[in-house]
Amino acid sequence: MEAEPKVEPPSDQWADKAWTMLTTVRRQSPLIQCITNFVSMDLMANTLLSAGASPAMLHTLEEIPHFTPHVHALCLNVGTLSADWLPSMKAAANFAFNSSKPWVLDPVAAGASGFRLNACLELIQLKPTVIRGNGSEILALSKASVQPTKGVDSSHESTDAIEAAKSLAQATGAIVAVSGAIDIVTDGKRVIGAHNGVAMMQKITATGCSVTALIAAFVAVDPSNAFEATALALSVFGVAGEMGMRLAKGPASLRMHLIDSLYGLDEASLISQVKITTFCD
Amino acid sequence: MEAEPKVEPPSDQWADKAWTMLTTVRRQSPLIQCITNFVSMDLMANTLLSAGASPAMLHTLEEIPHFTPHVHALCLNVGTLSADWLPSMKAAANFAFNSSKPWVLDPVAAGASGFRLNACLELIQLKPTVIRGNGSEILALSKASVQPTKGVDSSHESTDAIEAAKSLAQATGAIVAVSGAIDIVTDGKRVIGAHNGVAMMQKITATGCSVTALIAAFVAVDPSNAFEATALALSVFGVAGEMGMRLAKGPASLRMHLIDSLYGLDEASLISQVKITTFCD
Amino acid sequence: MEAEPKVEPPSDQWADKAWTMLTTVRRQSPLIQCITNFVSMDLMANTLLSAGASPAMLHTLEEIPHFTPHVHALCLNVGTLSADWLPSMKAAANFAFNSSKPWVLDPVAAGASGFRLNACLELIQLKPTVIRGNGSEILALSKASVQPTKGVDSSHESTDAIEAAKSLAQATGAIVAVSGAIDIVTDGKRVIGAHNGVAMMQKITATGCSVTALIAAFVAVDPSNAFEATALALSVFGVAGEMGMRLAKGPASLRMHLIDSLYGLDEASLISQVKITTFCD
Repeated sequence: MEAEPKVEPPSDQWADKAWTMLTTVRRQSPLIQCITNFVSMDLMANTLLSAGASPAMLHTLEEIPHFTPHVHALCLNVGTLSADWLPSMKAAANFAFNSSKPWVLDPVAAGASGFRLNACLELIQLKPTVIRGNGSEILALSKASVQPTKGVDSSHESTDAIEAAKSLAQATGAIVAVSGAIDIVTDGKRVIGAHNGVAMMQKITATGCSVTALIAAFVAVDPSNAFEATALALSVFGVAGEMGMRLAKGPASLRMHLIDSLYGLDEASLISQVKITTFCD
Repeated sequence: MEAEPKVEPPSDQWADKAWTMLTTVRRQSPLIQCITNFVSMDLMANTLLSAGASPAMLHTLEEIPHFTPHVHALCLNVGTLSADWLPSMKAAANFAFNSSKPWVLDPVAAGASGFRLNACLELIQLKPTVIRGNGSEILALSKASVQPTKGVDSSHESTDAIEAAKSLAQATGAIVAVSGAIDIVTDGKRVIGAHNGVAMMQKITATGCSVTALIAAFVAVDPSNAFEATALALSVFGVAGEMGMRLAKGPASLRMHLIDSLYGLDEASLISQVKITTFCD
Repeated sequence: MEAEPKVEPPSDQWADKAWTMLTTVRRQSPLIQCITNFVSMDLMANTLLSAGASPAMLHTLEEIPHFTPHVHALCLNVGTLSADWLPSMKAAANFAFNSSKPWVLDPVAAGASGFRLNACLELIQLKPTVIRGNGSEILALSKASVQPTKGVDSSHESTDAIEAAKSLAQATGAIVAVSGAIDIVTDGKRVIGAHNGVAMMQKITATGCSVTALIAAFVAVDPSNAFEATALALSVFGVAGEMGMRLAKGPASLRMHLIDSLYGLDEASLISQVKITTFCD
């Protein structure tokens, strides 16, 4: 890894932006359509609600032409993908693309099978605004070759995936985010790192899926700044995790306190904890 | 709105009924079949269990003729409806109708698409005992015309929907309940309001779905008094929310304390908090 | 019931084994593929994560040949079975059988319909390593005749089902576990009882499903001792429940504290609480 983190001296700038973004989401309550895996639905909907957004878990092909026009952003997640759900995902992504609506892809376990990898590659043709995955997933997409990963957990450090993320961003035009000890966000040129969050969040199912939905909500209210909005969503969710961790006794209480913290997050707490840095490239 | 709330002087009557109803559910443990959206399944099952009922999430067409005869009430919810689930819902509702078994419909986001609205209207042909929705949903059903609502959240105050609810009740023969700051229940003529609950319950996904299932459990043990049973279920769930709110730090801890409170609800706590009023019409 | 519990004087032996098994799961983090019902997915994934295993909820037929070879055990659960999910379950079980990979069956509400019972019987042909159910389910399977049970809850005491469990184990070659006040495990000859757990765990949906997944994780790291691994998983989950119960105010807080306790379980706490006994036969 040639990149070295460079903490921005006036990191207040990011902190202020984080607060502005969160209050905008709370005020505008963007409607986020989620076509997502079964495991994540409960936590994802509650994450969006606690952030002030309005979730809609609606996956039926017949409804896409009527409903998707009314949403502010779309979140697609292939975690429990099956052949009968893929047409809905494509139709919704296609609609979003054609109407310049932001949409976000979570390529869960992209390398688990050729079926899944191909589905992700087909969705990427429909120009997601943001792709967020763990290191293994981003590497799999970037290489576009089947490499069975270990479940849906990452077995690559996110920083190892920086080059893969940049390549993927350049090839697709999407902002690419890689979750890890440090969350990395790149537009193919610039690279920033969001340093918030705690390790135990990986012991709660669907936290990754849920932060992807939060990215959709942030991008929904500032679609022209998807690069920054993505980093801010990752940081805000991480701050909520850090605050939750102070009260938690284990993963299940962390899950509860994280959502409570996201809901109650105030300006001072957020601003003092946001930590986003620029990586040289 | 021409209706004015008139607090019943002996509101003890409602409170006593609430306690009788809850203890009956706990004693009889009615078996409630739920064909519901994916988001709600966990909280709905836990709501029924904590109230003393026995949930069965069983949605497969092949099983309806064998299983539905054994249930005490049916709860249908179209939240994540797809074309392949609709025949099961119809078969189960049809079975319930033909065998005079109570069944309850939750028309989630009824106005989100023509597909969804038509599905709801078809289900209503099968004579639900109770229909519970938010203001937007009840208005959409009542007008029976597609009006895209904002996600699954309500953008109409429940009291504004009283006339729509009465019309819908008259047209269908169902008890109609409209959730809101005050929950409204009508049989098309009488209108009562359940004043329990807290605003933060709307920040927890599937609380509306879950109270619909609780209505099914209450109606199951007193099918000849569906009007009262509906109001009592709304009030009991709201009381559990109020008690949970006293311990909650945010939506996720409210969710936990609400279920704990519903499970542990004792006579004195329930009786002192139930608040149901009659609206003149 | 002719069996009499005989508390093993050196019950330390079981306790030591429990700790060894749990630390092995934590160290090896076996990948457990779960094809399970919608209600259970969240709690099951979090149970596996908190025990140190790696869950993968992946149910699509197209992916089985690519993904199942990489998993360490398979968990099948028919709770919300539909005709379109059954081929995936069979394909995965068949793969596991042919590659000598352990797999565990949870025959939820096996007696609820002929469709469901037949599905379970077909799956049993594919030689599950372990079958875990409640008394009603094991009786239904053992008799292999349709007897509608009351929902998914048991209406038979687990000890009444000992003979049925032994017969089922003898007929199928599977280890059979029957959950109840005492959890019973048999290989058709030997019978042991795991005495841990608290009654309130039955008031939380999907605790039974989740312990079946935990059995899969335990058997994954010691496949040649499936009989012992099954009893140990039931006991460890029960101990976590007992520890959670000391902090719980109701079913929802028990659910949280149970998962936290499973995650944080230390050697002294586990060893002092494991209670497994041999039943004479």
